[in-house]
Amino acid sequence: MKVFVIGIGLIGGSMVLDIKALYPEATIYGIDNNEKHLQQALELGVIDIAATMEDLHEADFVIVSVPVNVALGLLPQVLDLVGENAIVLEVGSTKNPICKAIANHPKRRNFIATHPIAGTEFSGPLAALRNLFRDKTNIICEVEKTAFKLQEKALEVFKSLGMRIRYMDPKSHDKHIAYVSHLSHISSFMLGKTVINKEKHEQDIFDMAGSGFESTVRLAKSSPAMWTPIFEQNKAQVLESLEEYISNLTQFRDLLVQDDYNAIYDEMTSVNKIREILNGISVKK
Amino acid sequence: MKVFVIGIGLIGGSMVLDIKALYPEATIYGIDNNEKHLQQALELGVIDIAATMEDLHEADFVIVSVPVNVALGLLPQVLDLVGENAIVLEVGSTKNPICKAIANHPKRRNFIATHPIAGTEFSGPLAALRNLFRDKTNIICEVEKTAFKLQEKALEVFKSLGMRIRYMDPKSHDKHIAYVSHLSHISSFMLGKTVINKEKHEQDIFDMAGSGFESTVRLAKSSPAMWTPIFEQNKAQVLESLEEYISNLTQFRDLLVQDDYNAIYDEMTSVNKIREILNGISVKK
Repeated sequence: MKVFVIGIGLIGGSMVLDIKALYPEATIYGIDNNEKHLQQALELGVIDIAATMEDLHEADFVIVSVPVNVALGLLPQVLDLVGENAIVLEVGSTKNPICKAIANHPKRRNFIATHPIAGTEFSGPLAALRNLFRDKTNIICEVEKTAFKLQEKALEVFKSLGMRIRYMDPKSHDKHIAYVSHLSHISSFMLGKTVINKEKHEQDIFDMAGSGFESTVRLAKSSPAMWTPIFEQNKAQVLESLEEYISNLTQFRDLLVQDDYNAIYDEMTSVNKIREILNGISVKK
Repeated sequence: MKVFVIGIGLIGGSMVLDIKALYPEATIYGIDNNEKHLQQALELGVIDIAATMEDLHEADFVIVSVPVNVALGLLPQVLDLVGENAIVLEVGSTKNPICKAIANHPKRRNFIATHPIAGTEFSGPLAALRNLFRDKTNIICEVEKTAFKLQEKALEVFKSLGMRIRYMDPKSHDKHIAYVSHLSHISSFMLGKTVINKEKHEQDIFDMAGSGFESTVRLAKSSPAMWTPIFEQNKAQVLESLEEYISNLTQFRDLLVQDDYNAIYDEMTSVNKIREILNGISVKK
């Protein structure tokens, strides 16, 4: 099996690391226009062979794992270049724009739209790690538009990697993911900004930061090159979630201004049920 | 050594668990007006003996670890009851109100104001755990107001527990901690609220939540009984940090509305330096 990964970072890199371990007969071809990343990926053993787009005609399995804006232009080219029996998947955090971009492509049936909900705040080939996808959710969109035999091929790999599959239409995916992923990134980045700005005037403030701050601000380490186009592509949904978040924060601020501590207590108590919800996430993991 | 802990939860419970292990000659007396917590603490071996306020005259070392509003009324009583050689410490997340409350107490020199910056999102005796304080920061306020011999006694215990000490005046403590701790709790609670409200109308949204959401929303599991009085006591500083946070989020929203993705990219890049800052926290841990 010839597996190609285009964009060898956290997601693509981790995926081929697992595939290599689970399918000893697989050869991993890497394509990346960042020469340093390509060399790192070879040295780390994330890929076996540095390849180019011209080699794609040989591919059995292609993982496109590039920033979502790059994917929009790249994916049609990839589909142009692959053979009739190749399955191509794209793993970005927005699904509607990519599904639209290749809706009428003659090789639409060679494509499967996925969003493996897994990751860390790191990026590049050094961020690739084994078992990143174990017990994580993989959202698949418009599965009916992928050739049945190629669906099977992709699903077998996803199952080997330990993922649970959920089917969803791309619009619903983009709407929901704005709340449970994209908004968390903005809340974290802006929390980091607020504290960094304060630190400019108040030395040693970070000396006082503990694990709680670290947890809420962790996503502010994420890659701007990856996240800017996600916010752009999912602008309407992200704006909706962000407006609601600002409105909830403003309401909390007003309760504090009014010294309405009973209401603040009740607010927090009702949000505490997130415990059970997060337990659900932990069970899934 | 007779060690009393008043309020046997995450902080007080964890502290006496360590003291018990490190000082085999210590006997741990627990006081809690929650009878269930008192029994749990005995059963779990967090305390050796259930005690009452009347026993305080025997104490060598007293840890007051109750919600900060309760501490304001309780601490003067505790100081009234302890002997001349007892050291009393209070561990809450606000320091100025408590320092003011006992400023003129005849036994002021038996008190040391501390904030061990450690914790989890859990509470009660079941949340107590060993080594919670290892390599964590302990902020001590107004150290000069504590009798020198009693300072030494307290510091020796803090060092045994593995804490690094920072001295700070109570007003600066409350101002800085609003940014690196209190604000994180509000951002997390309101993020939880935003997503829970959405979930009411959109089933299965949490099925899509991954580790990033879990990390940013973890603090929303925290105890409202503990956190409401913290927000109340530190109202002015919390409001200042919250206003700045809302303003940064609103500015981000505006950039998104204006499709100014270059500015969004730059914003995120400049916040990325939180990586080094968090590395600093991790090194400390």
